[in-house]
Amino acid sequence: MNDTLFRTRKIISYPDLNAAGKLFGGTALSWIDEESAIFASCVLNRSHLVTVHMSEINFKNPGEVGQIVEIGTKLVSVGKTSITVSCQIRHKKTKTEIITVDKVVFVTIGEDGQAIEHGYQHEE
Amino acid sequence: MNDTLFRTRKIISYPDLNAAGKLFGGTALSWIDEESAIFASCVLNRSHLVTVHMSEINFKNPGEVGQIVEIGTKLVSVGKTSITVSCQIRHKKTKTEIITVDKVVFVTIGEDGQAIEHGYQHEE
Amino acid sequence: MNDTLFRTRKIISYPDLNAAGKLFGGTALSWIDEESAIFASCVLNRSHLVTVHMSEINFKNPGEVGQIVEIGTKLVSVGKTSITVSCQIRHKKTKTEIITVDKVVFVTIGEDGQAIEHGYQHEE
Amino acid sequence: MNDTLFRTRKIISYPDLNAAGKLFGGTALSWIDEESAIFASCVLNRSHLVTVHMSEINFKNPGEVGQIVEIGTKLVSVGKTSITVSCQIRHKKTKTEIITVDKVVFVTIGEDGQAIEHGYQHEE
Amino acid sequence: MNDTLFRTRKIISYPDLNAAGKLFGGTALSWIDEESAIFASCVLNRSHLVTVHMSEINFKNPGEVGQIVEIGTKLVSVGKTSITVSCQIRHKKTKTEIITVDKVVFVTIGEDGQAIEHGYQHEE
Amino acid sequence: MNDTLFRTRKIISYPDLNAAGKLFGGTALSWIDEESAIFASCVLNRSHLVTVHMSEINFKNPGEVGQIVEIGTKLVSVGKTSITVSCQIRHKKTKTEIITVDKVVFVTIGEDGQAIEHGYQHEE
Repeated sequence: MNDTLFRTRKIISYPDLNAAGKLFGGTALSWIDEESAIFASCVLNRSHLVTVHMSEINFKNPGEVGQIVEIGTKLVSVGKTSITVSCQIRHKKTKTEIITVDKVVFVTIGEDGQAIEHGYQHEE
Repeated sequence: MNDTLFRTRKIISYPDLNAAGKLFGGTALSWIDEESAIFASCVLNRSHLVTVHMSEINFKNPGEVGQIVEIGTKLVSVGKTSITVSCQIRHKKTKTEIITVDKVVFVTIGEDGQAIEHGYQHEE
Repeated sequence: MNDTLFRTRKIISYPDLNAAGKLFGGTALSWIDEESAIFASCVLNRSHLVTVHMSEINFKNPGEVGQIVEIGTKLVSVGKTSITVSCQIRHKKTKTEIITVDKVVFVTIGEDGQAIEHGYQHEE
Repeated sequence: MNDTLFRTRKIISYPDLNAAGKLFGGTALSWIDEESAIFASCVLNRSHLVTVHMSEINFKNPGEVGQIVEIGTKLVSVGKTSITVSCQIRHKKTKTEIITVDKVVFVTIGEDGQAIEHGYQHEE
Repeated sequence: MNDTLFRTRKIISYPDLNAAGKLFGGTALSWIDEESAIFASCVLNRSHLVTVHMSEINFKNPGEVGQIVEIGTKLVSVGKTSITVSCQIRHKKTKTEIITVDKVVFVTIGEDGQAIEHGYQHEE
Repeated sequence: MNDTLFRTRKIISYPDLNAAGKLFGGTALSWIDEESAIFASCVLNRSHLVTVHMSEINFKNPGEVGQIVEIGTKLVSVGKTSITVSCQIRHKKTKTEIITVDKVVFVTIGEDGQAIEHGYQHEE
């Protein structure tokens, strides 16, 4: 079975903060979507993907300005036109989880915006 | 029972696009989180809130540059330290749904970052 | 006569602040222009509009990080190729006015960038 | 009498465009406010200034992605707690005017956010 | 011999800060690249330029939020398809140097992305 | 000897493009600085670092919208108050180099902004 690999790091900056001075939830979700899309795009060797689903999201711990986070992804499953990825943001130093999304589902689309088969076969 | 009220509008601009030239999923989620937080903050009359949960998310339809969207919210339930909101982004013109999140849960926090009672009583 | 309707809300964040730690005037004007354009675009059912005029602007009160503002618009008048809108930003909670612009004038343009008739007839 | 001096240049980039693919009016106004504030701050040798007024604004010509603009300012008058500046954005190459604001008025503020005398005496 | 002329000013804002609360080095380099490109583009009267080289960079002094900086450029040399510019960021008030790059080299490119002669002849 | 490890990925988006429609040099340098700072901060277990030097930079190949890049870092040397890192951005898919900086030097600073010893000892 494959493990979550942390392939991207970010430092929490001022534009990422909410009014309470913590990492803004929307920014965290934006990072989840971008990193998952990068991972899915690399696995499928396709650049035209759209997010179609995210499973429920729990914000476990806050983030503060200046802290470094790492974002990890793991392949969950592969369909004919889709791919499912899990994604986690955690503190680099303490490994404390900030947020995990078990399933982020992408679909490959063609020029007309319709789903097309990606042709990727995942071997267990 | 209360209805979803659309209180915010946005126009999709270039920085909001993904590589496929559509509204980036992460931007949409960021809008969901911000609008839900604004709504929750107004209901509770509190400004220090953190997102703790989002229920699963389905991206129903894409958005293109120049299109106007509206973002709606509805009160779902109120706990002692928490509030649950539903949120939808749809096309302003066609009312076509882009994304809906049934439950966005916020908790009010104090100076020390711990959950505190918000004192709001919701009357059915 | 029609009234100003507040259809958009925003929360003042760190990137919106000037060096004095208050809502940056340029950001407020940017919000005025965007909201007015959205409103004009909805009224005329046209997406290619350019701002051609704003009447004088008075900044009445400051905004601080974490405060929620609402932005309202009202139809002022309609010409053959133009539309005039008034726009106000005020504090959501106190209804205190931050900035009001009595006239924001847009012109509809064609593919060649020249003004074209929008075909909208406003009934008093 | 003093002349408008062009002390700042910018290149129009993708995030500066509106849905019609032209320089967004709100971005142009944001540049006007920032440049005027910089100029006023330099003249008065004060860093805590807030915009209180702008005279009416005419958008004369559009801007396109990749074009270079220059932003000019001129001192109009000086009060006890205020300063009035004019500001123009024009195309660097053709000197074609994009937007001019005859009066941008700033007030110097103290720690308490109230207007204070800036002590600057302008000699004609 | 030509001198460095300071043609652009900026005010350091919150999004420009690093975790230590100082002007982020990456932002400063971004300003260097943009201003040099504007200058090179004006000299050559060409808009399609790409950065190909920067000489070593020393960060001499920090910048703080609210401070005004000015960015200067000077023509160093001109090749057949290239141009070399020097660029400095310094504090507007004290003239204290923040960062200087002795050589920023640009190449003019054609539609195919390949270097083309710019046809500019620099007279000493 | 240690190797360059690629720990961060990014997707090139519209706000990252210059007027020629390629990855803006300033954005690339900003990514270099951020990733190097994250790496240095992790090695030293210190969060207050400032960039003091970058060795010369060659932009080898362009980047286009939608392409995925990866950013790698390697420890070069460690001084009493400083650390030297090398950093490279390359295309994820083809491993084609976009930009490499052999030396990015950071200094650890204290509350007063002065350099302080970081106490880290690097074993060969």
